Amino acid sequence: MASDDTYEKLKEKLSEIDCLSSLAGLAGWDELTMMPPGEHAASLRSKASAALAGVIHQKSVDEELGRLIANAKPEHPKDVANVKRAKEDYERSAKIPGDMAKKAAELQSEGYQTWVKARTAKDFGMFSPILGQWVELVKARCELIKPGEDAFNTSLDEYERGMTAERLDEIFPVVKECVVDLIQKVYAKESPVALKKGENVVSGGSFDVDTQAKLSKEIALKLGFDLEKGRLDVSVHPFTGGCGPGDVRMTTRYKENDLSEGLTGTIHETGHALYEQGRNVTEYANQPVSRAHSMGVHESQSLLWERMVALSPSFATFLLPELKKSFPKEFENVTEAQLHASLNVVRNPSVIRVEADELTYPLHILLRTELEIGLMRGEIAIDDLPKLWNEKMKQYLNVDIEDDSRGVLQDVHWSSGAFGYFPTYLLGAMYACQIFEAAKKALPTLEDDIAKGTFAPLREWLRVNVHDRGSECDSADDLLVLVTGKPLDAEAFTKYLTEKYTKLYNL
Amino acid sequence: MASDDTYEKLKEKLSEIDCLSSLAGLAGWDELTMMPPGEHAASLRSKASAALAGVIHQKSVDEELGRLIANAKPEHPKDVANVKRAKEDYERSAKIPGDMAKKAAELQSEGYQTWVKARTAKDFGMFSPILGQWVELVKARCELIKPGEDAFNTSLDEYERGMTAERLDEIFPVVKECVVDLIQKVYAKESPVALKKGENVVSGGSFDVDTQAKLSKEIALKLGFDLEKGRLDVSVHPFTGGCGPGDVRMTTRYKENDLSEGLTGTIHETGHALYEQGRNVTEYANQPVSRAHSMGVHESQSLLWERMVALSPSFATFLLPELKKSFPKEFENVTEAQLHASLNVVRNPSVIRVEADELTYPLHILLRTELEIGLMRGEIAIDDLPKLWNEKMKQYLNVDIEDDSRGVLQDVHWSSGAFGYFPTYLLGAMYACQIFEAAKKALPTLEDDIAKGTFAPLREWLRVNVHDRGSECDSADDLLVLVTGKPLDAEAFTKYLTEKYTKLYNL
Repeated sequence: MASDDTYEKLKEKLSEIDCLSSLAGLAGWDELTMMPPGEHAASLRSKASAALAGVIHQKSVDEELGRLIANAKPEHPKDVANVKRAKEDYERSAKIPGDMAKKAAELQSEGYQTWVKARTAKDFGMFSPILGQWVELVKARCELIKPGEDAFNTSLDEYERGMTAERLDEIFPVVKECVVDLIQKVYAKESPVALKKGENVVSGGSFDVDTQAKLSKEIALKLGFDLEKGRLDVSVHPFTGGCGPGDVRMTTRYKENDLSEGLTGTIHETGHALYEQGRNVTEYANQPVSRAHSMGVHESQSLLWERMVALSPSFATFLLPELKKSFPKEFENVTEAQLHASLNVVRNPSVIRVEADELTYPLHILLRTELEIGLMRGEIAIDDLPKLWNEKMKQYLNVDIEDDSRGVLQDVHWSSGAFGYFPTYLLGAMYACQIFEAAKKALPTLEDDIAKGTFAPLREWLRVNVHDRGSECDSADDLLVLVTGKPLDAEAFTKYLTEKYTKLYNL
Repeated sequence: MASDDTYEKLKEKLSEIDCLSSLAGLAGWDELTMMPPGEHAASLRSKASAALAGVIHQKSVDEELGRLIANAKPEHPKDVANVKRAKEDYERSAKIPGDMAKKAAELQSEGYQTWVKARTAKDFGMFSPILGQWVELVKARCELIKPGEDAFNTSLDEYERGMTAERLDEIFPVVKECVVDLIQKVYAKESPVALKKGENVVSGGSFDVDTQAKLSKEIALKLGFDLEKGRLDVSVHPFTGGCGPGDVRMTTRYKENDLSEGLTGTIHETGHALYEQGRNVTEYANQPVSRAHSMGVHESQSLLWERMVALSPSFATFLLPELKKSFPKEFENVTEAQLHASLNVVRNPSVIRVEADELTYPLHILLRTELEIGLMRGEIAIDDLPKLWNEKMKQYLNVDIEDDSRGVLQDVHWSSGAFGYFPTYLLGAMYACQIFEAAKKALPTLEDDIAKGTFAPLREWLRVNVHDRGSECDSADDLLVLVTGKPLDAEAFTKYLTEKYTKLYNL
């Protein structure tokens, strides 16, 4: 077979796998938004999704696919990257023996159920045997995928291609130093300059939910979410999923007493959705290279729109008149400075990661990353985790952990052996800063545009520079070099935080 | 392998196929109700559905499945029927060579597109080459499935298990004689007794669509549609689909100037949905024997609720107070007799099947069935179809066909080679009559119950007698013997029509 034919044949097989995966995406979205509530619907869906996952797995480890990957030699760099991504996927699946894959699937289901029970019982001891099994299994799996390499790195690579513990060690300590210092200074103040103590114009009141939903939808459309290529629905936990770039389904939720949750939540999901809708649907449709680069880069797109845009002073200029239209009474005498400050209030430090604000969030991630590395390298014993967790929380945030359910058991991630997932949240925030800095340089009127509600220039810049590039880079560092001229640099993030909170709190 | 193990293994494989098919059902429903309108969503869905269909086909012709079917020897009659249904499916798929299946798939897509163009151009000549290819392909396929048997019967069997042209020949002429006679008598009258000429209380006015939707939903729930196990949405063309008995999704539509379309349409789909929701979800969940018996029996369930129930005088007694609540002004002075007559008006004969009423509809089916049998037996030349169509329309309904788009090109069915599908519509109407007669005998207070809006007794009787039986019978005749004590008898239908229209029009 000529090499060209080989590559075309490979693309066909990869496209088939992606198409079947798009139906798994549909089934997942439907389950959380549309599926009838009865038990028979749920049990059928669970069986059907397992059957489809089995089919996709079988096609992913198909020997003929392996041969095509080994023999395809396209010339164009994007095609070369496409084969590289396919090879990485294949090795991650095909090198795992059936027994191990089966054990992982069982452990996933058992792990989740055990975690729920342990968290309810506030008893880490119930969960630790499962966690021990996961550590051993992930280490063994990583050894098969990349023999002789650091297992944490191999696992991290699954969520953040090309990232390593060594690289994190260059970046995360800089963040730690900066935020620990900033937090102390902020907590010494009573409130942002623009607000009285306890004052907040976006939360604590009562905001009609339908009006919130209408406004959030208008803003999502204004940012560029395309209803020709997607849907916006309501679900208990907001998420962005669906079938692919032409059919992106985001969900959101609204709280009556907190305007910011629904609004910033919708903008966050819009960031994810714009990335998805901006992926290649022509030459590389359904190919691995058209996929989003990584978890971290995906999070960078949601956080760029949420934090860099929606939490900026310019956005308050745009938003305030919209809020005055939707909630005339509530915003009658509110100023832009009050709105901006209210959206950015640093609350008392939470022991719960998902409740943390921008400033304290990084410390939650640092803690988890340190523990994960220790676990994977055998430097931390499972049974020591709760003690270490609580000590680090005291040290970083000066908070006391009442019990394991609000400590080491609070997150679901480890119940499925997802070691290396947590760092992507913080990396996403850092990528977002650095990418936004580059956007500001490339688009000199960006802040004015935002103040005017003109979002197309930023969106189109991201589309070309990030979205359409998909997975063509080997690492986020490589992508950042293309987009911003340099690899990830902690300074963009620390500078952003320092300047912002210094001004906001007059530090 | 012990026979018991063989059967259990077979059931597992059959369940996997059914589970994957449930996702095809989801994808189909979503496409018509939820999918974003852009071209990329549609093209991805089309590729994804084709990929899933390919997977399902592969699993359906798997040799191991064939061996398990040949060797499974369960004892319980329902299990025996389950294996029988699996064998029929397998033979219908596995005996078809890949080339022929591929040709059929291509012809399906080409056929549809050509049909659309030919209908727009009002030119049968554009469509006839495709139709010729379909006739040859279906004949060849039927010869592979059941060598030496009449091809029309083999094709009909795919839609209506156990039905034959010979059996139709015993039944359909009786219907023809009856309706031709009744139609003449009805058209000699100006209007039903209870209405003035041109008067109609359910159409021609203006009925708020949201109020219609609310009322229709209430009635669907009252008939027994279970929202724990299904959804009710709006779509351009009403249909019932979804994922299986625990997740049945029906759609409907409303016309502002015609109350009856949305109302009877919803009740029709509710009939289909109740059948689906009544299928076995315990011992025989996801097994072939739990499927609906046939197209005709499915249609019997929709038509039983639409015609036998909703178009009956008793239902008018129940419905009128509901309408007075929803549309107080429009129904202020309306009587039950007027409502019942308005729902049952025989309109001028339509040349279009889907616009035909209960009385003229059978003749549309008879015409198509006669032509299909002629085509499959080589007794009718493709090119003679338009002439024969128009002659028969003149003869049966005394109408003139202006052009092919309103004649031989009006239906989509032949563009996919579905010969033998049309008869199931009329068979459904006839089964419905006979089953309802039996229900009346079994439930002496049935008509009073309907008048009171008490539908549970009928629904539960159908559940036990029809729905839960699924596909355990080899033919609808066998099913009717179990349900009504005798095989299909045209008299139930002719008696129903004669009595009803004699009374309605004072013939």
